[in-house]
Amino acid sequence: MTHKHPLDQATALERLGPGTYAGRTSEFYSNFGGPFGGFTAAVLLRSVLDDPRRQGLPVALTVNYCAAITEGAFEIKAREIRTGRSTQHWSVELTQGDTVAATASVVCGARRAVWSHHPSEPPELPHPDKLPVFDVTNPKGWLNRFEMRFETGEPDFTPRDPADIRPARSTLWMRDNPARPLDFLSLACMSDAFIIRAFLVRGVFVPVGTVTLTTFFHGNEASMSAQGSDPLLCVADAQIFSDGFADQTAQLWGKDGRLLATSTQIVWYKE
Amino acid sequence: MTHKHPLDQATALERLGPGTYAGRTSEFYSNFGGPFGGFTAAVLLRSVLDDPRRQGLPVALTVNYCAAITEGAFEIKAREIRTGRSTQHWSVELTQGDTVAATASVVCGARRAVWSHHPSEPPELPHPDKLPVFDVTNPKGWLNRFEMRFETGEPDFTPRDPADIRPARSTLWMRDNPARPLDFLSLACMSDAFIIRAFLVRGVFVPVGTVTLTTFFHGNEASMSAQGSDPLLCVADAQIFSDGFADQTAQLWGKDGRLLATSTQIVWYKE
Repeated sequence: MTHKHPLDQATALERLGPGTYAGRTSEFYSNFGGPFGGFTAAVLLRSVLDDPRRQGLPVALTVNYCAAITEGAFEIKAREIRTGRSTQHWSVELTQGDTVAATASVVCGARRAVWSHHPSEPPELPHPDKLPVFDVTNPKGWLNRFEMRFETGEPDFTPRDPADIRPARSTLWMRDNPARPLDFLSLACMSDAFIIRAFLVRGVFVPVGTVTLTTFFHGNEASMSAQGSDPLLCVADAQIFSDGFADQTAQLWGKDGRLLATSTQIVWYKE
Repeated sequence: MTHKHPLDQATALERLGPGTYAGRTSEFYSNFGGPFGGFTAAVLLRSVLDDPRRQGLPVALTVNYCAAITEGAFEIKAREIRTGRSTQHWSVELTQGDTVAATASVVCGARRAVWSHHPSEPPELPHPDKLPVFDVTNPKGWLNRFEMRFETGEPDFTPRDPADIRPARSTLWMRDNPARPLDFLSLACMSDAFIIRAFLVRGVFVPVGTVTLTTFFHGNEASMSAQGSDPLLCVADAQIFSDGFADQTAQLWGKDGRLLATSTQIVWYKE
């Protein structure tokens, strides 16, 4: 008997017809009253990954979080927009009843062994074993699906002076919990797993929500296999919080300082 | 008689019905056999900017370049997906005949005078007057629509040793040419105006194309007015060129070190 990883269980889709799927939210990736945004990103990508028409590997994923997704069933429609020699473009929508709760675009690309160059370098972090696992405290919800080991920028909600504004940057090791061999699905999910920067900077919970998330995938299947289930070196940061909208950036590095994914998002915050 | 700026002329749309528009490519923003990607981004955004149903200001724009756009007429369809209290989501498609040449998502947001914080800082650059205007050489095409003054990372196509791999980073001042008061339209256009990083790094032309572009807007109308037609301080860079796909990042800063836009894109390259 095989026990599927929570990510594979949670993102499982029932095919209703060409490019049409039924799915369900999962307690494994629950957030306040709906799924964690990384789950939504992963399940939208999966509708393309599982499609027999897919050509090439995921290169880019943009998810727009249009409305709150409620716990329960949803439907996904994935449209193949255009397939060329080097790229394939998809438009995807997640609906609950008449509500379009999320839209996404997925670009797949035919990666070829041509000129490559890797000018960027990850920061140096202590070995994961030297850093404690982040204590999620709450036994329920999506945070339990990741093993995080912070070097800097661990969230701290101990009450503090509101004038104590801290850096938006975190450096950490992260992998799935339980451990799972890396693939595009888990990278998509993990690219939204960086705790909202406003929480870190201000040390208080305010109403927030990811509005749009764009993740670029920089590796192929060999890069994923090479990584296996070892933790990724991650950097998350923010550049500006302005009038209710903030940005958030992330880099996810694999073994030998190989950049595997980069991500940017806009987060709405109420106050 | 008023003379409209080339950007306003080039992106002018004829309304055919609700959310349906006819447009044309323009020699002002021509590239090799089709329009410059920044033009496409701007005209797609304009279909939402001009829509009477629009609520709030642009916060995010993702453009997927699905197929080559040929010189001539095109049609744009803009669908209002979801309007909430804080955000409004749009899906847009640009077609030529039966070909979907580009898709886009636009997020608008209701900016409110709440807590704001600006942790990032631009690099220091000499005053624009101290840097020469980049010589575009070719009197035709989109490069003439921008006045660029490079501090570092000016493109150099003088034949050189292929092993001479240079930094992917450019720092420069940029504004529209002729000068034009900044708005969301010009920011969208400018966010794709950074010369392809692979050209800079390798010093040779290889076949390339932007596959997907995401731009975040961090200011409101007051930020735009404050900027006027003065040049923006810009940083463009790349983190990885891997198996035919590279990333490209950009930051566009206004007066007083105010971040006005950030952008990321994936560029396909052939060899």
